[in-house]
Amino acid sequence: MPSLTLADLQARLGGTVRGDASVPLNGAASLEQARPGQLGFLLSRKFLAAARASGASALIVAESLSDTLPQPCLAVANPHACFARALRLLYPEPRPAPGIHPSASVAADCVIDATAQIGPGCVVETGARIGARSVLGPNCVIGAGATLGEDCRLHAHVTVQHGCAIGHRAILHPGCVIGSDGFGLAWEGNSWLKVPQVGRALLGDDVEVGANTSIDRGALDDTVVEDGVKLDNLIQIAHNCRVGRHTAIAACVGIAGSTRIGAYCQIGGAAMIIGHLEIADRVTISAGSFVAKNLKEAGTYTSVQPLMRHADWLRNAAHLRHLDGLARRIKELENQIAGMPAPTQQEPP
Amino acid sequence: MPSLTLADLQARLGGTVRGDASVPLNGAASLEQARPGQLGFLLSRKFLAAARASGASALIVAESLSDTLPQPCLAVANPHACFARALRLLYPEPRPAPGIHPSASVAADCVIDATAQIGPGCVVETGARIGARSVLGPNCVIGAGATLGEDCRLHAHVTVQHGCAIGHRAILHPGCVIGSDGFGLAWEGNSWLKVPQVGRALLGDDVEVGANTSIDRGALDDTVVEDGVKLDNLIQIAHNCRVGRHTAIAACVGIAGSTRIGAYCQIGGAAMIIGHLEIADRVTISAGSFVAKNLKEAGTYTSVQPLMRHADWLRNAAHLRHLDGLARRIKELENQIAGMPAPTQQEPP
Amino acid sequence: MPSLTLADLQARLGGTVRGDASVPLNGAASLEQARPGQLGFLLSRKFLAAARASGASALIVAESLSDTLPQPCLAVANPHACFARALRLLYPEPRPAPGIHPSASVAADCVIDATAQIGPGCVVETGARIGARSVLGPNCVIGAGATLGEDCRLHAHVTVQHGCAIGHRAILHPGCVIGSDGFGLAWEGNSWLKVPQVGRALLGDDVEVGANTSIDRGALDDTVVEDGVKLDNLIQIAHNCRVGRHTAIAACVGIAGSTRIGAYCQIGGAAMIIGHLEIADRVTISAGSFVAKNLKEAGTYTSVQPLMRHADWLRNAAHLRHLDGLARRIKELENQIAGMPAPTQQEPP
Repeated sequence: MPSLTLADLQARLGGTVRGDASVPLNGAASLEQARPGQLGFLLSRKFLAAARASGASALIVAESLSDTLPQPCLAVANPHACFARALRLLYPEPRPAPGIHPSASVAADCVIDATAQIGPGCVVETGARIGARSVLGPNCVIGAGATLGEDCRLHAHVTVQHGCAIGHRAILHPGCVIGSDGFGLAWEGNSWLKVPQVGRALLGDDVEVGANTSIDRGALDDTVVEDGVKLDNLIQIAHNCRVGRHTAIAACVGIAGSTRIGAYCQIGGAAMIIGHLEIADRVTISAGSFVAKNLKEAGTYTSVQPLMRHADWLRNAAHLRHLDGLARRIKELENQIAGMPAPTQQEPP
Repeated sequence: MPSLTLADLQARLGGTVRGDASVPLNGAASLEQARPGQLGFLLSRKFLAAARASGASALIVAESLSDTLPQPCLAVANPHACFARALRLLYPEPRPAPGIHPSASVAADCVIDATAQIGPGCVVETGARIGARSVLGPNCVIGAGATLGEDCRLHAHVTVQHGCAIGHRAILHPGCVIGSDGFGLAWEGNSWLKVPQVGRALLGDDVEVGANTSIDRGALDDTVVEDGVKLDNLIQIAHNCRVGRHTAIAACVGIAGSTRIGAYCQIGGAAMIIGHLEIADRVTISAGSFVAKNLKEAGTYTSVQPLMRHADWLRNAAHLRHLDGLARRIKELENQIAGMPAPTQQEPP
Repeated sequence: MPSLTLADLQARLGGTVRGDASVPLNGAASLEQARPGQLGFLLSRKFLAAARASGASALIVAESLSDTLPQPCLAVANPHACFARALRLLYPEPRPAPGIHPSASVAADCVIDATAQIGPGCVVETGARIGARSVLGPNCVIGAGATLGEDCRLHAHVTVQHGCAIGHRAILHPGCVIGSDGFGLAWEGNSWLKVPQVGRALLGDDVEVGANTSIDRGALDDTVVEDGVKLDNLIQIAHNCRVGRHTAIAACVGIAGSTRIGAYCQIGGAAMIIGHLEIADRVTISAGSFVAKNLKEAGTYTSVQPLMRHADWLRNAAHLRHLDGLARRIKELENQIAGMPAPTQQEPP
């Protein structure tokens, strides 16, 4: 871990230092757990008390908050982004060690940049291409004809299936699968016949894919994940989906086949989106929601049941089977009331 | 990619050609994206306009639709199945390259058919058996005593745990796990004690298992997935489940322990089925539904909340905690109305 | 498989034998499928008829039930736990074969106990430590500086990322990922900036992690899974979660970032818990439930929609979009009724 001063951070990241710019920093932590020598950050006034009490030796803060803190501060317009960059300086990624590990199996006709690193146990099949400075962690598998751009970082056990293409600066976490077959079946006689999946999965630049997430290849045309899309763990992107640029999807989400998600969307964890839908740009789906219709307008959409004590749920949920009956009874009451004599107390005196 | 004519397809797949049977085909695409030289298909009248406008050089179509199209057509009774078979001809699977890759670790007493292919980095443990023409992709692991039938295709990073048995023509996608331990725990004193899982996972013939799906072994008896079952990605099949033949299950579904799913069922994505249930043959579960009771009759079942704009949801969902109160208030109103004077306008004039 | 008598089991596990203690046992099965030579068990009176009819040669039973059975019995206070221990005797785990497989890639500075077993294709990176008698199955990856305690059992394809620490007796099932990056993103300009995840994932002793489950490392501080926690398959534990000791979580559950789950909780399959919550000790969450608020008291909580035939669901679910309207109409009816003449039949005669 390198040691940097607050002045070093300012020199690289901009902003204004308040207090002692020479304070040495060798790591970062939360406000609660920070010890001397560590950097913290403060995003909002809500955590001001925690910041004041923090053991951090320096803080990255919003400009409006920097005056109020006892610690030396780097005041910036976007403290979250600045802190992210400071973390990369304090915890630099290991530099690629160019070369192909002797235990890797690499087909003779692959084109692997001399600056790329192919880890132990990797398998790179015929015709694959790996760009400059890209790193394949241990036991990754790159299928025939697949391509990776520059500066990609594949962690352990990643699978990229044949023919798929991934842009620059991708980050693929352990166990994720790019380009698995879509779930294409034709019914014939008395059983299912597999429909060969001959499209590809195409990922743009700056895409991140979480652990054990799967992105299916297209059935005929391609599945497309556009630039800047961020996918968390255990997500399913089915065949022929398109995920628009800079959309972020939290863990455990499933998106069924041929659905198109717009750009700048945010999809909460465990949401489920059925197939063949169009979701507009800048749509937010709440965690746990079920989406079964097109969403043509930006906004936030939700469909979850509120949690109750189980005994309350038993009492309430039974009525969900009879909502139609309740609604009809209300209508009937309204009809009956409409035919009643006018209320007496409404009569003029 | 081989080049075939429409006549070639007819010779192998049957049907009737309308138009120029000599048109050469070297691939397939959707109606929208097809270019000359590519095959398309038309399943229903709904896409007739797209078919007419398509750049595809030929189409596979239902017999009733073939007269209406400008392109040469192969008219068949089941165009979806016929198209699936045509795809396999246009995009043949790589033939197994028999043999054991030098980087694989194969126990001396395994029985591996001479026509099988064991990829780089594979591990095949003691007593395992691999049938004719089966292919293990890179870095697969076959546990002690496990058996694979003939013509199986395991993609990368598949795990088949010890003692499990898989039939013929299985397709196992990257990262799937067959025969992991079930979640068996006994409470003892103040902590959980693991219950050893000594059953197996048994898969019939023609089973397909999606990426990162897990099928647990049985606790005592076996977990059984019958012939022709198709499982999508990221599915959990718990210990001692039985999934009936030709049932298809979409991605992200969870089925808890000892539940028996009938034959010819279709289970939508992200459905959750609790344990110890019996689901009849030919049941359809809608995507996102939660199943907590036996389903003894064929039919379609659903339990999802409709999606709303978040502001509408806030207003509506609050009442879900008070449905029982609303129902009681309706009953009370009905009682009160019943005791009211008869409506005046109902009186004879 | 060893052969043991009921007397052998009693000698090792305690309890009281009724009937012939010399009956030889070479395996175990369910009451329904047990054959001679196999051990069964009986937990509750509910299965008494099945026990009486069982082909099992002997049974482990609750003390109160042992008199009523034709088979020789081992009567104990906790038959489930006793049976779990008997299974381990009848089906002993393979003993570690100490040593490092020649196909494994192990950094020179790792500290690997001489009694540990490193399987084929494993990769153990610089500075990692593996405790006594721990077993790494095929193709596991242990990142730089990660530590495993004693008697751990990693199945195939497990990933433990750099710097993570795992206690003694962990059981990690195929494909699980410990210490993947959390989903940390800062919005900057018009795109997401990755926030480096510099915390660790720390697992206590006696933790079990299911197939393809992922546990993210902390963003700054650590993600913590305490002693005795049991996690099923395909679970997501996000960054900075803390899961309290002896909590059991069923498959397909997602827990979002920074949520703290208490001790002795039970979380049903496919439940989803949003981030930054506090869940008290001894909380039970029903399968399929969505948790979006703190739960400060022990108890059982639920939020699921009941399943209906699809036609019924269509009729009922439509009203969920209008619950607020129905509630207002009920209130309106109540107001109108309150202004009506008193019911005539309530008048004194």
